[in-house]
Amino acid sequence: MEYINKYVEENKDRFLEDLFGLIRIPSISSEKSHKEDMYKAAEYWKQTLLSAGADKAEVYETKGNPVTYGEKIIDPALPTVLVYAHMDVMPVDPVNLWKSPPFEPEIREGKIWARGADDDKGQSMMHAKAFELMVKTNTLPCNVKFMIEGEEEIGSPNLPAWCEANKEMLKADVILVSDTSMIAPDKPSITTGLRGLAYWQVEVTGPNRDLHSGLFGGTVANPINVLSKMIAQMTDENGRITIPGFYDDVLEVSAEERELLGRAPFNVDEYKKAIDVEELAGEKGFTTMEHTGIRPSFDVCGIWGGYTGEGAKTVLPSKAFAKISTRLVPDQDHEKIAVLFKEHFESIGPKSVKVEVTSLHGGPAYVCPIDIPAYQAAEKAYTDVYGKRPVPVRSGGSIPIISSFEKILGIKSVLMGFGLESDAIHSPNENYPLEQFYNGIKTIPLFYKYFAEMNK
Amino acid sequence: MEYINKYVEENKDRFLEDLFGLIRIPSISSEKSHKEDMYKAAEYWKQTLLSAGADKAEVYETKGNPVTYGEKIIDPALPTVLVYAHMDVMPVDPVNLWKSPPFEPEIREGKIWARGADDDKGQSMMHAKAFELMVKTNTLPCNVKFMIEGEEEIGSPNLPAWCEANKEMLKADVILVSDTSMIAPDKPSITTGLRGLAYWQVEVTGPNRDLHSGLFGGTVANPINVLSKMIAQMTDENGRITIPGFYDDVLEVSAEERELLGRAPFNVDEYKKAIDVEELAGEKGFTTMEHTGIRPSFDVCGIWGGYTGEGAKTVLPSKAFAKISTRLVPDQDHEKIAVLFKEHFESIGPKSVKVEVTSLHGGPAYVCPIDIPAYQAAEKAYTDVYGKRPVPVRSGGSIPIISSFEKILGIKSVLMGFGLESDAIHSPNENYPLEQFYNGIKTIPLFYKYFAEMNK
Repeated sequence: MEYINKYVEENKDRFLEDLFGLIRIPSISSEKSHKEDMYKAAEYWKQTLLSAGADKAEVYETKGNPVTYGEKIIDPALPTVLVYAHMDVMPVDPVNLWKSPPFEPEIREGKIWARGADDDKGQSMMHAKAFELMVKTNTLPCNVKFMIEGEEEIGSPNLPAWCEANKEMLKADVILVSDTSMIAPDKPSITTGLRGLAYWQVEVTGPNRDLHSGLFGGTVANPINVLSKMIAQMTDENGRITIPGFYDDVLEVSAEERELLGRAPFNVDEYKKAIDVEELAGEKGFTTMEHTGIRPSFDVCGIWGGYTGEGAKTVLPSKAFAKISTRLVPDQDHEKIAVLFKEHFESIGPKSVKVEVTSLHGGPAYVCPIDIPAYQAAEKAYTDVYGKRPVPVRSGGSIPIISSFEKILGIKSVLMGFGLESDAIHSPNENYPLEQFYNGIKTIPLFYKYFAEMNK
Repeated sequence: MEYINKYVEENKDRFLEDLFGLIRIPSISSEKSHKEDMYKAAEYWKQTLLSAGADKAEVYETKGNPVTYGEKIIDPALPTVLVYAHMDVMPVDPVNLWKSPPFEPEIREGKIWARGADDDKGQSMMHAKAFELMVKTNTLPCNVKFMIEGEEEIGSPNLPAWCEANKEMLKADVILVSDTSMIAPDKPSITTGLRGLAYWQVEVTGPNRDLHSGLFGGTVANPINVLSKMIAQMTDENGRITIPGFYDDVLEVSAEERELLGRAPFNVDEYKKAIDVEELAGEKGFTTMEHTGIRPSFDVCGIWGGYTGEGAKTVLPSKAFAKISTRLVPDQDHEKIAVLFKEHFESIGPKSVKVEVTSLHGGPAYVCPIDIPAYQAAEKAYTDVYGKRPVPVRSGGSIPIISSFEKILGIKSVLMGFGLESDAIHSPNENYPLEQFYNGIKTIPLFYKYFAEMNK
């Protein structure tokens, strides 16, 4: 590792300057006014790859924001690593809560403070700099491809089609992604599972107009009362979801793997204290880590109806609405679940109301097997840098595009995340510890080394 | 009745002009910008009473809008009628839905179209004109007092204190109120009951901030899921409210009285069709009319929490809110119910959330016994004008001030309403049939006549 540490030490300030240059471009994908910034960011990535040593780098148009693709093919016989990352960031509101301007990166307390410091500008820049390190030190043992998209924060609507159209160019043995987090620097972990998602909007209609709750209350079904009863029925007293067939395809995780997952350090009291709740909830028979890692969940993300202003207006409203989501696990099919929910939810509505369910969004779960060479190469690389073998962790979140890669390109992804829970991604005062940034740059070349060795 | 019909016929156009003058003053009590209009309306009432024949009339200041009081005392030995009405009206939004400007009264299809045409300018002006008729035709058989307030549409916040301060002046044998409706001109009815009200806002807090529904969903209690379960528990499978002690003071109406109430003409198919619902709901063992007339109800008037915008944003929200009301019946005490609900609702919240209940509003139910002379006088008066004996009807609505009159002044109110369900009070295109306006003016003097005879 000597050459790695030396190169990082000698170039650390420039690495940071190059990251800051990217951060200063306010590439917010959900705001149309930043369309031009997306092209600036794509161009910045093109230059970053070329100066790091790519043979070629191009900005590709899509129906939405551009994708920057670059590669260095040293020998078609060697394994190929495809790096996936995103150049877009989340909005910065409420901007007044930021201690320093979100697009003017600042170093305080050993951390970089800015929108994108972690997600995903900081984590993606580690790959560019690790690539440069391997090129400049003549230690690159694999072919490398980079695919940097500009729409991850809005659900990657155009990337699947772009992948489909560029299958040949994207051929690789593994996809490397740094867009997740680890438990702590002294408790390294690698995310091996992501939950899937199905999301609906439901509309319950009672009378054809808002009614006087005195004149009609007690005989005309109130759609909010009814919607509440319907939502209440969706989970039972054991915290299980009651949609018939919902669990049919849930992969039961073996006792052995559950034991392994249970080794991840976790303090339930600290967890509860951090979010200020007296008790946790969830499906009986499973631990907190299992609830979010290997079991599906049912959450109402939003609800509204009737009078929601100041004071006491009486009304028996015509309509009530909710946004409902389930997180899914292997091998649940999000499209099948979308239909099962719709059928069930519409069937439990009483005849006193009309129920309409619209499926809004969805994606499958993803699992990275811990016995594939790429995972094991990552495990060894982390062990070298962090001094401890990382534990595999199933995350409750969803990155639907990862499953799409497997489906379209037939390639597994390894989620080499270096973020921390405290990085406040998507929130004001996003930050990323300098130590994680530099440790990431050191870990990545070791992954390439071990991965190439395993593929010999 | 000859002298009555004659006087109305000779003065009908002027009656209408005097009403139009009142309607043209936009006395919206909930909008501060109309403060001056409240004084104009109060002054208009003072002049109306004086020119009708009152001995005196004054505008009284309160902490809010003024009250106009006027009287004609012909003989302290005779019975005294106190007329209660309100000069304020509801807002007119959405104003673009009105077919003619709300404060420029128009006659179309035999109806007066304007804000306040019925509620309560049209109905209150009938009393002024009936009073004038009796004075000018020398047929006034009782002492008369008028109390016209300007805050009914905002809950009469200052009238109880004003009544308390003017108890002596307001002494009377009955209060006459025209601020309700009848079933139909060919199905006359008199409202004999009004439900009471208790109203709360509830706040359910889960985690101390909005959480990522992927990372936390399934183990951290979602406050919307929990609130839905709590609301669902508030009514059972028979449509009964589950708050312990809630029904303790509910006056069970005798089979005989239920039979009488059941005589009011009612077509359930037309009722369902008008509001476009396939089935009605409500407490088992009671009819639709009984649900709204003699039984309490539980309605969520509003609910909100989490993401309610376009599309599919995933979030496990920190908080969920609801506005909850119950309509009450005799002899439920709204203050006792307010406490029972708060205690119960807070007690059913699981430890995974915090629950806070705030009582916002309330008032007791009111019943006018059908065996008192004043009711019977009204019944005879309606029978003379409409050719049919009116049926007593329990309305589901609430006019809390009516119960306050009984409590403070010790006087029963008779609700001589001439509105129709189709008058669209509180809505765009409020209207009042000319025939109801004139029939009201004819019915009221007959009430005075019969009431005086019964008190001889």
